[in-house]
Amino acid sequence: MAHDFEMPHEFEYRRRVDFHETDMAGIVHFSNFFRFMESAEHAFFRSLGLSLHDHDGERMQGWARVHASCDYLSPAHYQDLLAIRLRVIAKTPTSLAYALTFHRVDEPNDVVAEDALARGEMKVVCITRGSGEDRIRATRMPDEVDRAIEVAPA
Amino acid sequence: MAHDFEMPHEFEYRRRVDFHETDMAGIVHFSNFFRFMESAEHAFFRSLGLSLHDHDGERMQGWARVHASCDYLSPAHYQDLLAIRLRVIAKTPTSLAYALTFHRVDEPNDVVAEDALARGEMKVVCITRGSGEDRIRATRMPDEVDRAIEVAPA
Amino acid sequence: MAHDFEMPHEFEYRRRVDFHETDMAGIVHFSNFFRFMESAEHAFFRSLGLSLHDHDGERMQGWARVHASCDYLSPAHYQDLLAIRLRVIAKTPTSLAYALTFHRVDEPNDVVAEDALARGEMKVVCITRGSGEDRIRATRMPDEVDRAIEVAPA
Amino acid sequence: MAHDFEMPHEFEYRRRVDFHETDMAGIVHFSNFFRFMESAEHAFFRSLGLSLHDHDGERMQGWARVHASCDYLSPAHYQDLLAIRLRVIAKTPTSLAYALTFHRVDEPNDVVAEDALARGEMKVVCITRGSGEDRIRATRMPDEVDRAIEVAPA
Repeated sequence: MAHDFEMPHEFEYRRRVDFHETDMAGIVHFSNFFRFMESAEHAFFRSLGLSLHDHDGERMQGWARVHASCDYLSPAHYQDLLAIRLRVIAKTPTSLAYALTFHRVDEPNDVVAEDALARGEMKVVCITRGSGEDRIRATRMPDEVDRAIEVAPA
Repeated sequence: MAHDFEMPHEFEYRRRVDFHETDMAGIVHFSNFFRFMESAEHAFFRSLGLSLHDHDGERMQGWARVHASCDYLSPAHYQDLLAIRLRVIAKTPTSLAYALTFHRVDEPNDVVAEDALARGEMKVVCITRGSGEDRIRATRMPDEVDRAIEVAPA
Repeated sequence: MAHDFEMPHEFEYRRRVDFHETDMAGIVHFSNFFRFMESAEHAFFRSLGLSLHDHDGERMQGWARVHASCDYLSPAHYQDLLAIRLRVIAKTPTSLAYALTFHRVDEPNDVVAEDALARGEMKVVCITRGSGEDRIRATRMPDEVDRAIEVAPA
Repeated sequence: MAHDFEMPHEFEYRRRVDFHETDMAGIVHFSNFFRFMESAEHAFFRSLGLSLHDHDGERMQGWARVHASCDYLSPAHYQDLLAIRLRVIAKTPTSLAYALTFHRVDEPNDVVAEDALARGEMKVVCITRGSGEDRIRATRMPDEVDRAIEVAPA
């Protein structure tokens, strides 16, 4: 349900809340907002024809989270249709940072009209690990990612 | 594997990383650190004879997260034995805030000797919902919680 | 991405595999196939205008799993687009049973052409719990569900 | 909290239910029983000095699930202390099959006295993948596993 436009610095990802994502308080478990953030980021990459994880047998290249945070303003519930808006707020040769807001929409084609249920941030670093290596380490992001993604205007 | 002492402002919770908590990058998925934080908080409450969730049929009383954040310094791996240290850093009549650090230990009875793999914070608000009510709302924490939990010395 | 037709006895649900659904073996963790089965069931109910979980303040009505099984034939991977086919294979006044198959499709609008990656079954029982009650118990399914859902022809 | 004896064909694994493992029906989500089964299997291997997943840089060796099933008899709840009993019920040069039962115990050192909450089965196949290879394939289990694990007497 992700939108069809391609933008180098923002994206909107939509998904419905699954039953297993709720907890006994009757709301979406707070940890799942972090999974939704990552899903939005991956859909953003896909919208630009990019992949967040590559493995050519010799070398794994991916993105590790170095920071993640979320402020919860209002709970999300089972079957809610969530619109997750991602904006690129910082970029270095090895890292990206995003701001994200979570909104509920009534119908799949509705534009976002409600206040945010939650606001998050995530900073990711491009990492690599060679086969036979034990440790991952930071690396410059691939050129195609560097060309495709920009910091959003203020 | 939680330690046996009872302290009103700090706690150490230990658990081994399960296979399903890893991802295809070969490390613990970042979202699971937030689940570990909550498990540490709940073990802290249990160590004081308290429960974080009550339901008497008429009324549900629990704790909602209003903020959670984590800085990732070094990855955790499958079968790592994690020691998660929780300290109470703030308290109001309706809320608690914690600082948490994640450490790896080699053996169940080893004291923590390694640097933190990750550092997190979490702020929780006491909430209630009556039966027949749709919405949860903030409420004063139960007296027994208020008496049992203190802010850690600086 | 669920299809738009409404059928009383079968349904196809589509979703892309998220990064957090993989494990360190580089494939979708086997437990997530059970979550996908449930998501397919819930999308099937939604396609018929039904909900699988209701709570009117006084009484919770839902569906509890009494059996679930899965045979894994070939692994699913990160970003795979899965088509999950559900068929109703049995029905009693209090229960439903489904057979499900998992297929990979290349593009969102492709029809299923590949063999199944996995085959599962799930049996669910309609349950209820009154407020103030501790235990859930089996109950007749709601009339609107009984009218809407049929066993698939053999 | 796993018991300290080592047996070549059975094992008991104990763990407390975490809050995030519940769903809005107020019980442990059915998919988590499959994660508990796997955790019990991994603890069984650890009790015998074995690991279920190895990666030497050149080659990954692990165990893939080819079948998993569970019958749910009575729900498990938040903070329940579960005792998960695993028995080896079949063995071939490349595979193992387990039967598992889930029980609730009141205190960590109590013996199991209650009927099973759930009964499951799981069949796993030893698999390998070389670096540079795309696909996993079945392989003979390592000699040390073959020597250490036996089928339980009937």
